[in-house]
Amino acid sequence: MGKIEAVAGNGLLGRRAFLRGSLAAAAVTGYTFTKSASAETLADGPWSKVPGELVAPYNLPSHFEKNAVRTLSNPKGEPRTSHARTPHHLLNGTFTPNGLHFTISHAGNPDIDPEQHRLAIHGLVKRPLVFTLDTLSRYPLVSRMTFVECGGNSAPMFSNEPIQASVQALHGLASCAEWTGVPLSTLLEETGVDPKAKWLVAEGADAPALSRSVPLKKALDDAMIALYQNGERLMPGNGYPMRLLLPGYEGNMNVKYLRRLKLVEEPAMSYYESRTYSQILPSGKAYRFFFLQEVKSFITQPSHGLAMKGPGLYEISGIAYSGTGRIAKVMVSADGGASWAQAALQEPVQSKAFTRFRALWRWDGGPAVLQSRAWDEAGNVQPTRAQFVAERGETRKPPAVQGFPNQHFNAITSWAIDAKGEVKHVYA
Amino acid sequence: MGKIEAVAGNGLLGRRAFLRGSLAAAAVTGYTFTKSASAETLADGPWSKVPGELVAPYNLPSHFEKNAVRTLSNPKGEPRTSHARTPHHLLNGTFTPNGLHFTISHAGNPDIDPEQHRLAIHGLVKRPLVFTLDTLSRYPLVSRMTFVECGGNSAPMFSNEPIQASVQALHGLASCAEWTGVPLSTLLEETGVDPKAKWLVAEGADAPALSRSVPLKKALDDAMIALYQNGERLMPGNGYPMRLLLPGYEGNMNVKYLRRLKLVEEPAMSYYESRTYSQILPSGKAYRFFFLQEVKSFITQPSHGLAMKGPGLYEISGIAYSGTGRIAKVMVSADGGASWAQAALQEPVQSKAFTRFRALWRWDGGPAVLQSRAWDEAGNVQPTRAQFVAERGETRKPPAVQGFPNQHFNAITSWAIDAKGEVKHVYA
Repeated sequence: MGKIEAVAGNGLLGRRAFLRGSLAAAAVTGYTFTKSASAETLADGPWSKVPGELVAPYNLPSHFEKNAVRTLSNPKGEPRTSHARTPHHLLNGTFTPNGLHFTISHAGNPDIDPEQHRLAIHGLVKRPLVFTLDTLSRYPLVSRMTFVECGGNSAPMFSNEPIQASVQALHGLASCAEWTGVPLSTLLEETGVDPKAKWLVAEGADAPALSRSVPLKKALDDAMIALYQNGERLMPGNGYPMRLLLPGYEGNMNVKYLRRLKLVEEPAMSYYESRTYSQILPSGKAYRFFFLQEVKSFITQPSHGLAMKGPGLYEISGIAYSGTGRIAKVMVSADGGASWAQAALQEPVQSKAFTRFRALWRWDGGPAVLQSRAWDEAGNVQPTRAQFVAERGETRKPPAVQGFPNQHFNAITSWAIDAKGEVKHVYA
Repeated sequence: MGKIEAVAGNGLLGRRAFLRGSLAAAAVTGYTFTKSASAETLADGPWSKVPGELVAPYNLPSHFEKNAVRTLSNPKGEPRTSHARTPHHLLNGTFTPNGLHFTISHAGNPDIDPEQHRLAIHGLVKRPLVFTLDTLSRYPLVSRMTFVECGGNSAPMFSNEPIQASVQALHGLASCAEWTGVPLSTLLEETGVDPKAKWLVAEGADAPALSRSVPLKKALDDAMIALYQNGERLMPGNGYPMRLLLPGYEGNMNVKYLRRLKLVEEPAMSYYESRTYSQILPSGKAYRFFFLQEVKSFITQPSHGLAMKGPGLYEISGIAYSGTGRIAKVMVSADGGASWAQAALQEPVQSKAFTRFRALWRWDGGPAVLQSRAWDEAGNVQPTRAQFVAERGETRKPPAVQGFPNQHFNAITSWAIDAKGEVKHVYA
């Protein structure tokens, strides 16, 4: 058998290797890093000779995975915002386990008693109502896999020089989970909606009482009051005991610890919508009420901090998503965008959810620049960096600071590999 | 608008309520438990007045969820098997979060250094090979959602008297996760397979060196060497750093801490396959090499231990799965099987994975017996208890003991609701 032919420059084999049987060809020529089994390799490890550790009420990762944690921007809990970022480079699969879902908290995680918590829907409704966690659980529930991404995720990418940082530091403020809860449309059927209502003001029960205005149209579309996250109750950092979920809309609008929804005629012009998320673009236009997290992708393996271990075959793997709908296609390049190969998408591809893409690559040990680029089912395409910067601007000094553009970055990320196998963040 | 018509006896509204807009009718007549919003309900809780808790590197559930943990059969880690059961009655959605995935450990969880761990494939192969965690990660990976169920799950159901216990105690040795790893067929392409090989003996690196024989046909079908569980590395209780995954086959065969696969001509007749999983059936036939976890379902809400809170509308919710493939249909009954309504299935329905079913029910406050019954895409139907017992037997005294039938229970579970709203386990 011959070897699998590259489908793009610099050794990219793309998704063909995922067809059964096709790897046999690659095997002989590529996976020379495997070793012959011998008696020595079958010897007992020390852990095979002693009883193991206690089985606990709640599974936790091995202590050998101590690096697979969220990095904290405010580890001492000083009176400012805390960011906890998802370690994408150490994860695989199609969503984020609850332990590692990103959190942004503006005054820590409130310690809410779920029995005491209430959700009120009032304002321009026919019957203002209040719900407990128990009563919400009696409505028809739905589950959906969807990502939540901070509007400020990838802010370091606005820097005019590429910052040498992991995919966790660059893109760790996006995560994906299966959320189960009550469609907001169901509750609005219960309250009835005054025809004058056009917006909802959503408010959280955390100390800052974070509030955002949400178009009624979105509330009646796919919005949910989420009660469960990946099967269990929400994590305190993700809105326990309930949060607003607005699939595909910027994270800050997915109000955690949701305690009320007030139906109104006009948006409230609350803190975040009038300040952080109302940036002025180079064109002079502002971002006001621009909610959508647009089509995006990045390669998680290899990536900065994960060194290559000699020439040969590697899987290039990453995450793609779009607030508009399903991912239709991801292309990957090993030569900085000069040529492209189509990646395999992990089924089932779900709307507004992380989609894992994979491509096989034979690294010859020479320089390479890896990129990914995603398309969604509506035909939106992830912009190149040059296209993006022309429209949205960049900043001169890292890290991006308030007042400079630092929101809604979705352009291509590039990883350069040198002859030593080190992975650098570059603009290509 | 009129109210939603029941589609089966004793108030079952079935899946119609999940159609948009149809709930508005039910609302006025059913959800009388909601209250009008007032100024009082919008008052700040104590958690709204103080800064919250520290954002931590690894999210953990709220302390208010202290009951949402695995129950332990061996909390002190005495030298015997430990079982940790999934609290299905407190969960929702379509899979099990890693903290709550069931564990059975015959000598605790081994503390394996992933850098030192090796997987050898040897025996009747052309090229015996040894793999590290790093080298395995370079192969094309796949992700699949699938359940793992202990062959002895639901053993208390063999009792000739219904045991009053939660769904966690009865059915908690089944869980579902997204596993990401290398198809075993890929690795067998690498080693080559001697035509004489018909079985693989899989062995774990835990102290008991648990070993099971696996048909080569299954190994070449959908078997996987799993490296990630719900996105992160495997939990120590679920096989860290790698396990054999045999979708739909009894849990014990999904060898954790996998350290070798030896290709052989005949099964090894190892401990578990010659003892625990070789029960003699009433017919005189034995269970030897009966691997499949057959089509099954159970209602998780309401269930024993979750009392009803007055008449009105409730969601009946549960889990269905089949080792054969996708769930095709779940029917629910509120009158002990006299009449049935079709439940809604949460999309996407995936092969050999938990499928969440839901139906809306108007409880009139009178006696009711809730049941669910599942069909898979191959046409297999979950047996009634009477059918099952006739074929597989039952035991006279709870709990089932060794030597009595206690494996592969998959018949219908019945929950009786009395006028107080208490839920009892009954045989109906």
